[in-house]
Amino acid sequence: MIPRYSRPAMVAIWEPETRFRIWFEIEAHATQKLADLGVVPQSAAKALWDWWATKPAIDVAAIDAIEAVTKHDVIAFLDWVASQVGPEARFMHQGMTSSDVLDTCLAVQLARAADLLLADMDALLDAIKRRAHEHKYTPTMGRSHGIHAEPTSFGVKLAQAYAEFARQRDRLVAARKDIATCAISGAVGTFANVDPRVEEHVAEQLGLAVEPVSTQVIPRDRHAMFFATLGVIASSIERLATEIRHLQRTEVLEAEEYFSPGQKGSSAMPHKRNPVLTENLTGLARLVRGYVTPALENVALWHERDISHSSVERMIGPDATVTLDFALVRLTQVVDKLLIYPDRMDRNLNKMGGLIHSQRVLLALTQAGVTRDGAYRLVQRNAMKVWEADGALNLLDLLKADDEVTAHLPPAQLESLFDLGYHLKHVDTIFARVFG
Amino acid sequence: MIPRYSRPAMVAIWEPETRFRIWFEIEAHATQKLADLGVVPQSAAKALWDWWATKPAIDVAAIDAIEAVTKHDVIAFLDWVASQVGPEARFMHQGMTSSDVLDTCLAVQLARAADLLLADMDALLDAIKRRAHEHKYTPTMGRSHGIHAEPTSFGVKLAQAYAEFARQRDRLVAARKDIATCAISGAVGTFANVDPRVEEHVAEQLGLAVEPVSTQVIPRDRHAMFFATLGVIASSIERLATEIRHLQRTEVLEAEEYFSPGQKGSSAMPHKRNPVLTENLTGLARLVRGYVTPALENVALWHERDISHSSVERMIGPDATVTLDFALVRLTQVVDKLLIYPDRMDRNLNKMGGLIHSQRVLLALTQAGVTRDGAYRLVQRNAMKVWEADGALNLLDLLKADDEVTAHLPPAQLESLFDLGYHLKHVDTIFARVFG
Amino acid sequence: MIPRYSRPAMVAIWEPETRFRIWFEIEAHATQKLADLGVVPQSAAKALWDWWATKPAIDVAAIDAIEAVTKHDVIAFLDWVASQVGPEARFMHQGMTSSDVLDTCLAVQLARAADLLLADMDALLDAIKRRAHEHKYTPTMGRSHGIHAEPTSFGVKLAQAYAEFARQRDRLVAARKDIATCAISGAVGTFANVDPRVEEHVAEQLGLAVEPVSTQVIPRDRHAMFFATLGVIASSIERLATEIRHLQRTEVLEAEEYFSPGQKGSSAMPHKRNPVLTENLTGLARLVRGYVTPALENVALWHERDISHSSVERMIGPDATVTLDFALVRLTQVVDKLLIYPDRMDRNLNKMGGLIHSQRVLLALTQAGVTRDGAYRLVQRNAMKVWEADGALNLLDLLKADDEVTAHLPPAQLESLFDLGYHLKHVDTIFARVFG
Amino acid sequence: MIPRYSRPAMVAIWEPETRFRIWFEIEAHATQKLADLGVVPQSAAKALWDWWATKPAIDVAAIDAIEAVTKHDVIAFLDWVASQVGPEARFMHQGMTSSDVLDTCLAVQLARAADLLLADMDALLDAIKRRAHEHKYTPTMGRSHGIHAEPTSFGVKLAQAYAEFARQRDRLVAARKDIATCAISGAVGTFANVDPRVEEHVAEQLGLAVEPVSTQVIPRDRHAMFFATLGVIASSIERLATEIRHLQRTEVLEAEEYFSPGQKGSSAMPHKRNPVLTENLTGLARLVRGYVTPALENVALWHERDISHSSVERMIGPDATVTLDFALVRLTQVVDKLLIYPDRMDRNLNKMGGLIHSQRVLLALTQAGVTRDGAYRLVQRNAMKVWEADGALNLLDLLKADDEVTAHLPPAQLESLFDLGYHLKHVDTIFARVFG
Repeated sequence: MIPRYSRPAMVAIWEPETRFRIWFEIEAHATQKLADLGVVPQSAAKALWDWWATKPAIDVAAIDAIEAVTKHDVIAFLDWVASQVGPEARFMHQGMTSSDVLDTCLAVQLARAADLLLADMDALLDAIKRRAHEHKYTPTMGRSHGIHAEPTSFGVKLAQAYAEFARQRDRLVAARKDIATCAISGAVGTFANVDPRVEEHVAEQLGLAVEPVSTQVIPRDRHAMFFATLGVIASSIERLATEIRHLQRTEVLEAEEYFSPGQKGSSAMPHKRNPVLTENLTGLARLVRGYVTPALENVALWHERDISHSSVERMIGPDATVTLDFALVRLTQVVDKLLIYPDRMDRNLNKMGGLIHSQRVLLALTQAGVTRDGAYRLVQRNAMKVWEADGALNLLDLLKADDEVTAHLPPAQLESLFDLGYHLKHVDTIFARVFG
Repeated sequence: MIPRYSRPAMVAIWEPETRFRIWFEIEAHATQKLADLGVVPQSAAKALWDWWATKPAIDVAAIDAIEAVTKHDVIAFLDWVASQVGPEARFMHQGMTSSDVLDTCLAVQLARAADLLLADMDALLDAIKRRAHEHKYTPTMGRSHGIHAEPTSFGVKLAQAYAEFARQRDRLVAARKDIATCAISGAVGTFANVDPRVEEHVAEQLGLAVEPVSTQVIPRDRHAMFFATLGVIASSIERLATEIRHLQRTEVLEAEEYFSPGQKGSSAMPHKRNPVLTENLTGLARLVRGYVTPALENVALWHERDISHSSVERMIGPDATVTLDFALVRLTQVVDKLLIYPDRMDRNLNKMGGLIHSQRVLLALTQAGVTRDGAYRLVQRNAMKVWEADGALNLLDLLKADDEVTAHLPPAQLESLFDLGYHLKHVDTIFARVFG
Repeated sequence: MIPRYSRPAMVAIWEPETRFRIWFEIEAHATQKLADLGVVPQSAAKALWDWWATKPAIDVAAIDAIEAVTKHDVIAFLDWVASQVGPEARFMHQGMTSSDVLDTCLAVQLARAADLLLADMDALLDAIKRRAHEHKYTPTMGRSHGIHAEPTSFGVKLAQAYAEFARQRDRLVAARKDIATCAISGAVGTFANVDPRVEEHVAEQLGLAVEPVSTQVIPRDRHAMFFATLGVIASSIERLATEIRHLQRTEVLEAEEYFSPGQKGSSAMPHKRNPVLTENLTGLARLVRGYVTPALENVALWHERDISHSSVERMIGPDATVTLDFALVRLTQVVDKLLIYPDRMDRNLNKMGGLIHSQRVLLALTQAGVTRDGAYRLVQRNAMKVWEADGALNLLDLLKADDEVTAHLPPAQLESLFDLGYHLKHVDTIFARVFG
Repeated sequence: MIPRYSRPAMVAIWEPETRFRIWFEIEAHATQKLADLGVVPQSAAKALWDWWATKPAIDVAAIDAIEAVTKHDVIAFLDWVASQVGPEARFMHQGMTSSDVLDTCLAVQLARAADLLLADMDALLDAIKRRAHEHKYTPTMGRSHGIHAEPTSFGVKLAQAYAEFARQRDRLVAARKDIATCAISGAVGTFANVDPRVEEHVAEQLGLAVEPVSTQVIPRDRHAMFFATLGVIASSIERLATEIRHLQRTEVLEAEEYFSPGQKGSSAMPHKRNPVLTENLTGLARLVRGYVTPALENVALWHERDISHSSVERMIGPDATVTLDFALVRLTQVVDKLLIYPDRMDRNLNKMGGLIHSQRVLLALTQAGVTRDGAYRLVQRNAMKVWEADGALNLLDLLKADDEVTAHLPPAQLESLFDLGYHLKHVDTIFARVFG
C-alpha cells in the first residue's frame, strides 16, 4: 500500500482511528449485554455510550504513548478510554480476551472493505454495460492465438467482460459473508468467562454472524477464502487490461486509453500513446495475486491459535484491499473513457482481403452441389492469391472473376456471402443472456 | 499425480477413455438437436445413438494412431467414430469447433471430480462428527502459541474442525456450480455456424448450465475459482494434520495415528511411532496450494482465446483433484482410527500443578473483597512456587496452606474453583451451533 | 509430468530402476569404505561389486512385491539385493539410515537432471546465437508498451535473449552445485553409528560434495534454491515465447513458428497459423513457476526432520525437471526454425511514414540554430499530418516541401536523417559484449 | 512495509530523497562523461558537481509540486535541479531516457539493500556461532517426525543453522552481483543517442557492472532472481523460528525467547511466556515468500519493455527488503538472548527411561554372540515395560535385572552403553566442517 496506488476511502478503513472506533463499539456493545445479563452494572454501559454520544475524538498519539509502556495495544486502548470515561469504564472487557476485540474488528474492517469493492465493481459493471451497448453491433475481428479468426462485435467482447465481472461480484458477496463473523469467546473459545449471549448481541449490533466455534481466534480458512477471491478478481482485471493493451498496439490500434487533446505522449515522438494505465493494472493484478499464498499459509495455526498470521494480515489486509480497490476504479475509468475506433476495426477486418469469409463461400459451394474437395480447391486457389498479395487483392473480386466459381454462385450471391451480419445475428441472444 | 497418492475413482475421470465417452455424448446430443432443428437428418442422430446403445468399447490406441497422423485429437476421434458408425456420422460436429467439445468435456470432468470430493468431504465430516461426540466432554489442554492456556474439550477441538470442513464443503459446492457450464458457440463464440439452441440442449442433457458468453473457450475465471477453492480446502487439511502431528509429539502424546498391534515402528527403536500420515498430508496440502497460482495466471488469455492455459490444465486438472481426493480420504482414515488418550490429556492438564486455575482464584479473591492488586499478589506468590517446582508442587495445596488466602476463601471453596467443569459448561452450546 | 510434455532422457532419471541403481552404488561404495575401515569384511564389498560387474537387471516388480509386505522401500531393496548377492550382503547398510540413501540418491538425480538442463540450455544458446548473427543487422521496430519506439535490429533482440539465457545457465550451474551433496550421517546426523569417512568416500565416488551438517536429511534450503532457479529460468522462457507470440500476430507478422510447406493451419481458414508452440511454452512456464512455492514451504521441517517434504518432492522433482527440459528443447526448436520476415519488419518500420525519425530531425533543426520550441513546432506540424493520414503520407516528403524547414536543412541533409544505420551503429558493441 | 516491521536504515534506502540523490549522481556522472567526450561543455559537468559539493538539501516537496504539473517524475526532478544549478544544467540527461536513470537507480538501491541484508546475516551468523560453541556439547534430544530419535548436541543444532545461513549469505552475494548493473542505452537500448562509454563511466563510478544488453530497461530476470533468493532466505528464517517455537512448547520447554525478569507474560496466567517473536518471524517469512511470484511474473515484459513491472517493484522492492531486514535482525536478537535450559534437555532425554539407548544395547548383544533375533527379543521385552510405565521405570535397571541379558553383558558393560558421549563423539568433526 503506497499513496500512488491508494484511494482515501479504503485507506481510511485501515487507519488506527478507525480501528479504535470499532474496538470501542465492540467493547461498549459487550458491556451493554453484560449489564443486561447482570454481570456488570447498567451504569457502566451507560457511561460508555454517554461518552460516545459526545462524538469524542480519538487521541491516537495518546494511546500509542500508553502502548509504548504497556506493550499491549488493547490494554493501552482500554486505559485511554478509562481516562476519558472515568471509573465506570473498569467494567469494560469483562471476561474477554484481546483477540475477541481484534478478530471481530478485523471482520468489520474486511466487511467494509468488501462493501467498497462491491461498489467499485458496480461502477465497473455500469461502465462496461454502457460501452457494450454503445458498440453492440460494431463489427470487430475475433482473434484466437493472436491470429484473426472470425468476426464478432465489440459489444460482445464487452458483454463477456461484463459477465465475468458479474460472476466476480457474486464471488465477492460470498467471500464477504464468509469473513463477517463475530467471536467473543475467551482464551480458547469455551466461553468460560463470558456468556455466549454477549457474542450474539455484539454480532447483531455490528451486522455480523456469530462464529460457531472460535478458539480465541476466528478460523483463518475464512480469511484465506477472502484473499483468494480477491486474487481471482485481480486476474480478471488483468484479462481486460491485457485485451486493451493488445488493442492499442501500434499495428492494431482498435482502441486506446483516453488521451486528452492537449496531452503529450512523448516530447520527442508524437506517435507515442502508451497504454500505461492497463499496463499498470497488469502489475497490480500480480500484487493482489501474490497475497493469496500467504493467506493460505495462515490457515494452519498451531492448536487453538498461534500469532504467525498476525504480521501477514497487518500487511496484506490493507495491501490487498487498497490495491484491488485502486485497480477496480482505474479499470472503470479506462473503460469509461476508452477511445474506440470502429474504422480501424473495419480496416483490420478487411486486412486480409475478405479471407475471413472463405469458410462461408466453401459451404455455399458445397450446398450448390460442388463436392467438398472441389469446393476447397476452388476457394483455396483464390484465397492463396489474396494471402500472398498481403492486402493488395481481395477475395470477392477474384471469386467473381473465376468462371468455375460463378458457374455455381452468381456474383450477387457471392456478394451476399461477404456479409458481417452473418456473424452478428446472435448478438441479441448473447446480450439477452448477459444483460437480461 | 503419481500412483502412490492416487485413488482409482478420481484417476478414472482423467483417463482417455472417459474423455472420449464424454466427447461422444456431447457430439451425439448436439447432433440430435441439429436434427430436431432440421440442420442434419434425424437418421444421423439415430445412427450415433444406436451405435452407443451397443455399449461399444473405446479403442484408445486406434484413436491415438489416427491422431499421430492428423495431429488433431478431436478430428482423430471423429474419424474413429465414423469408422464405427458409418457414413451417417459425417453430420456430427456440424458448425462446431474443437473447443466446444474440449471445454464442455472439461466441465463435465471437473464437475464429476467435485462430486467425488464432496463425497470425500461427507465421509470426513461424518468421521469428525463421530469422534467429536465420542470426546464431547473429554477435558484437554487448550493451547495458544504452543503454550498451555485454558482447558477445553477434545470434542470442541473436533467440532471446530467439523465447522471448518462444513464451510469448505459449501465452498466446493459453489465452485462446482461455477465450473459446470457448457459452451457450443463456434470459433469466437458468435454462434455464426451453430444455433444457440444446440448449446442449450447439450447443457441440459449433461446437467450443465449454459455459458452466457464463451469466446471459443469458457472463460478461465471459473477454473481459477475452482482451483483456488481446492487450495483453500487443502489448507484446512494441513491445519487438522498439523494439530495431530503436535498431539503425537513424544512430550505431548495426547493422540496418535492408528498403529496396529503387531506393527513395528522401527526395527531398532520401539518408541518410534511417527505421524507419517499427517506429515504426508502437510506435504500434499503444499502441492494443492501450489496449483492455485498457475490457475490464476490462466485467466488473462489473449483476446478471444489463446492456448496457454491448456498445458497448465492438462497437468493441474488431474494433479489437483487426484491429490486432494487422496488427501481427504487419508485424513478421514486418520480421524476415524485416531488413538486418543484422555489419561495423557489429563496428565498434561495437571502438568503445571493446577496453574491453569490461577485466573479463577484471582477472580474469586476479588469477589471476596480483596483488591485486584492484593489478589494478584496472593495468587502470584503461590503460583511462582508451583512454576519453579516444575510439577512437584500444586497450587491448590499451597493456597490451602496460605492463611492470607484462606482468610477469604475457605478450603472447600478453593477446591470448587479447581473445577474443569467450569471450562466445559458451554460445550453444549458450541455443539448445538455446529451439529444443530 | 505427462507423456505429452516429457522427453525420455529426463523421464528415465526418475524411473524406479534408475533410483535402485543409484541406491546400489551408494550402498556398495559405503560398504567398501566400511570394509577399508575394518568395520565389515572386505569380502562383503567384493561380493557386491562382483555382482554389479555382471550388469544385473533390476527386478523392479520383485522389489515392489517385497515392499508390499515390509512397507519400507529401502528394506525391500536391500532384501532383494541380498537375495541376489547372497549372505555377504548382510553387511550392507551397516550403521546407516534410509534417509542416507534416499537423500543422497535425490542429490544424484537432481544433479543429473541439472546436467540435462544445462545441455538443453547450451543447445538453446547455440540456436539463439546462430539466428542472432544471421539477423545481426536486420532492422526491426523496437517497441515499448507495445507501441513503436525506435528502430533496433532483430539480432539485438536475440542477443538480449542470449545474454539472458547465459545468465540463467550460470544460475543453474550454481543451483546444481548447491544440490549435489552427500549425507551419510545416521538417524540425527551425529555419525553415532557410522564413521564420517564413509560419507566422504561415497561423496567422492559419486561426484558429490559432503553435506557439512545433515540431520538425517539434507537441509531443504538447497532444494528450495534449486526449484526457485528453475522457476526463474521458466520465466525467461515465457519472455521469449511471448515475444514470438507477439511477432506472429496477424497485424505484426514479423516472425512465425515454422510451418512446413504441406501443413494445414485450419481446414477452413488458410490464413490460420497459430503460435501454438510458444503459447504452450507460456503455460509450461506457469507450471514450473508453480512448483517454487511448495519447494520453499518444504524448508521449515520440524526439528531434525519430518517427512512432509517427501510427497512434495516425489511430485515436483520429476514434474519441474521434466517440464523444464521439455520446454527448453521446444523453445530451441522454435528458435532454430523460426520463420523471420525482414520485409515485413521493414514495412512495419515504415508504417508510420517515417515518424520514427522525427526525434532526429528535431535535434538537427536545433543544431542548425532553430530554438527547441521552434524546431518542435516545425516537426510537429508535419508529423501530425503524417499521423492523421495513417500511412498515406510520409514525413520526409512533407519536410522537403516545408520551406521553413528546408531553410535550415536542405533536402539532402534531411534525407540523411532518415537513416536506419544511425540506430544500428552500436550493434557491434552490443554483440561484442554478449558474444565476446 | 509498515513501521511495526521496519528498521530505519532499510526504509531510508527507499525514501524519495535517497532516490533523488542517486538520480543526481547518475546524471552528473553521465554529464561528466559526455563532457569528456565533447558532446556537452565541461562547464556543464562542473556546474553540477560544484552545486553538489555544497551538500544541498533535496526539496522533495518542490519536486513533487513540479511533477503534479508535468506528470513525469524524472522531468520534474531535472527541472528542479536546473532551478538550483542554473542554465548549465540544460546539458544534463543528453541522449538519455528516463529508464536509464530509473533502472540504474533501482540497481543502486537493491545493491545497498543487499549490503544491509548481508550485514544482518553476518550479525546473525555471529550470534549463532557464539551460542553454538556455548552449547557445543550440551546433550539434547534429536527428533524426527516430532518423536524422540537419538541424542545430539544443542551446538550441532545451531551448527546446522549456521551452515544454512552461511549458504544463504553466499546466495545473497550472488543475487547482489546479479542485480547490480547499470544501463544507459536509450529508448530501445541501441545507444542511438548516447555513447556506450557514458554507460561504462557511470557504471564504474557507481560500483555497478555494465548491463550487456538493455532494451530501455534492465532485463527483469535479474530482479526475479534477487527476490527469489530473498524468499529462500526467508524460508530458512522460518525453519529456525519453527525450531524455537517447538522448543518453547510447554511440554518441551528446552529453550525460550528471552523474558526480562520483571516482564509479565499475562496479567492472569503466570505460566504464559509465548514465543511471539518467532511466531512473528514465521508470518514475516510468508510475506517475503509471497513476493517471489510477482517478481517471476515480471520477467516476461512485452517486446523491448512494458511498464507492468513498475507497480510490482514499487511495492515489493521496499516490502521484501524491509521485511527481510527486520526479520533477520529480530532473529539475531532471539538467538542472541535465547534462554537455553540444559537441565530440561537432560530431563527430556531421560523421559523415556533410557529407551534412546536400546539400539546400542541391541548391537552390543549381537557382538556378544546373541543372534539378532534373540537380541531384539531380549531388548524388546524390557523396553516394552519401560514404554508402558511412561517414565516410571528405566531400561538400564531392568536390563541389569534380566539374567539372560547379564549372561552376555555384565552390569558394568551395560552401564557403559548408556553413554551420551557415544552420540557426541563426532561433534568436533561437524564443528570443524562448519566453523573451520
